[in-house]
Amino acid sequence: MRISVSCFAAFVALTASSSMAFCPTQQYTSVPSALLASTAEPTTTFDLGEYIMSKQPAINEMLEETVKSIDPPNTDLVSEAMRYSLMAGGKRIRPVLCLAAAEMFAPSKEAAQEVALPTAIALEMIHTMSLIHDDLPSMDNDDLRRGKPTNHVVYGENLAILSGDALLSTSFQWVAEKTPQDKVDPSKILDVVTRLGKAVGAKGLVGGQVMDLLCEGKRGKREVTTDDLRWIHTHKTAALLLVAVSCGAILAGATDEEVEACEKFALDVGLAFQVADDILDVTQSTEELGKTAAKDLDADKTTYVKLLGLDGARAEAQRLVTEAKEALEPFGERATPLLALADYIVNRKN
Amino acid sequence: MRISVSCFAAFVALTASSSMAFCPTQQYTSVPSALLASTAEPTTTFDLGEYIMSKQPAINEMLEETVKSIDPPNTDLVSEAMRYSLMAGGKRIRPVLCLAAAEMFAPSKEAAQEVALPTAIALEMIHTMSLIHDDLPSMDNDDLRRGKPTNHVVYGENLAILSGDALLSTSFQWVAEKTPQDKVDPSKILDVVTRLGKAVGAKGLVGGQVMDLLCEGKRGKREVTTDDLRWIHTHKTAALLLVAVSCGAILAGATDEEVEACEKFALDVGLAFQVADDILDVTQSTEELGKTAAKDLDADKTTYVKLLGLDGARAEAQRLVTEAKEALEPFGERATPLLALADYIVNRKN
Repeated sequence: MRISVSCFAAFVALTASSSMAFCPTQQYTSVPSALLASTAEPTTTFDLGEYIMSKQPAINEMLEETVKSIDPPNTDLVSEAMRYSLMAGGKRIRPVLCLAAAEMFAPSKEAAQEVALPTAIALEMIHTMSLIHDDLPSMDNDDLRRGKPTNHVVYGENLAILSGDALLSTSFQWVAEKTPQDKVDPSKILDVVTRLGKAVGAKGLVGGQVMDLLCEGKRGKREVTTDDLRWIHTHKTAALLLVAVSCGAILAGATDEEVEACEKFALDVGLAFQVADDILDVTQSTEELGKTAAKDLDADKTTYVKLLGLDGARAEAQRLVTEAKEALEPFGERATPLLALADYIVNRKN
Repeated sequence: MRISVSCFAAFVALTASSSMAFCPTQQYTSVPSALLASTAEPTTTFDLGEYIMSKQPAINEMLEETVKSIDPPNTDLVSEAMRYSLMAGGKRIRPVLCLAAAEMFAPSKEAAQEVALPTAIALEMIHTMSLIHDDLPSMDNDDLRRGKPTNHVVYGENLAILSGDALLSTSFQWVAEKTPQDKVDPSKILDVVTRLGKAVGAKGLVGGQVMDLLCEGKRGKREVTTDDLRWIHTHKTAALLLVAVSCGAILAGATDEEVEACEKFALDVGLAFQVADDILDVTQSTEELGKTAAKDLDADKTTYVKLLGLDGARAEAQRLVTEAKEALEPFGERATPLLALADYIVNRKN
């Protein structure tokens, strides 16, 4: 079984939703038709944009709660630096993936949100931490993120490092403290903490970023193979998308077998996400991306586009998404939001 | 009731134990008698050095386990950077505090270690992360730590930041994954994760470090009061010592009231620890400290010595330790290792 979605409606609404939290009157930008080519035959009218928008108030409200100001007032600075990047208009893809996965197994949307929202928030905090640290001068040295100056440009390197550290530690605290233990077996919450920890550590985000630095020649030049690239992105990008989906499923009571199917889906989507990123780097302008465009090209960085060509990369992204979707076939209609998210991830324009 | 300890023996053995893991033939340095003045009348012969040394094999073995190398081989670099700082001969004060607190409430030393070792390890990982990040050029810009070049001097800023991130995330993973759920109620393990998260975040280590940067004038010059200084150290130093003790107690089954007594003890010891640090900065050489001496003085940093004078700071350290010890009176003999650790903390020479 395959489910397509009304992708045009979803895409326009999503483009709006990701900025609407802060600028509700902003005009929608038009969607390049080429980006929609692969999902041209909608069979349902599921509205992904509306779906994501419906999640954002709860996500943003709890994110605000994580960075409440502290005493004495002059240490508000770290909360301010955390909030600056947390609330910079991110698309909240990881939290939404987590909530959508929970909905596949929970009795209702409300029940899914109740058990999975603290973990959804933790995922966004971890993701934001990784962006802040990756943008630092000693890493990717980037000045622009989500259309705004990067954290260290505004607050300095020391605050950027520290606000990342605080986001990371608060993310674990949040899962442990805020997940309702009368709704979720505490052992399962500990499993979620464990999986989040692994997704960040030397075998997760950090390992991927180190390998990325190695491949960029920042730590000694070396040849980069497709396997290397896949390894980097499995760890740097896919690891967090994977735990977003698997933890959502676990918190909502999925069986081990169901969690495994979710993991297969998420791993492929995670790799597709990175292939799409590489495509966007060469096809979109800095303004459209909200971050520096053609940066990989300028840095002579090994990307899927460089290795496979633009058409080859597009085909690879589509192959990965098709495989990903197959993993969720057993869940029928309940998988619709996750399938729509998979389509969005390869077809997004920033 | 007060328990003193055979501090000279403890101190000499401790000095040995902290370096013996890597240099068993190193000569012991003599202990300045002035440092021992406040604990001149031993009433028991508890040997703190032997006590700490007895904990070190288990601590070091599990620390090694946290940084096992990963595939592909070239990403060993992050494990290597993590190991470099983790295994640089730290005194393991936080792990030992955690294990000693657990022993007050567990049926045996073995039982205490079984429930508290993963958290003890997590505390050392968090502490090491905070040292690596605080030493960075944009923070305290220090080249020397534990007698060795700092992490960023050896591995570069990017690896230093990333290895800190990996240590932090692995610490939470370790507690959640390795604490035996058949020995400790999973809800209590979640409580430990929560407390660790708070101890690091914007209201813990990170908040303290930000305030420290503010007070050093690195983020705009301002007047520093004794209250500011107490706030900094409550967050930057005491917070982690506090959770070391309280989490050890919780894991071993202490009641809420017993945990509170432990917290009172640890908060005072934490502040005493920092006063002692300020004293050491002006009284010891760089060689003796294993890190740059007179650094606070050179940076015109506000310290307890600057605010209270050398004698005043010594009196404050002793006052804090006396208060700390009183909190543990209800636990009688079982508190001996913690009381000895408190004495060591104000009398240590590096």
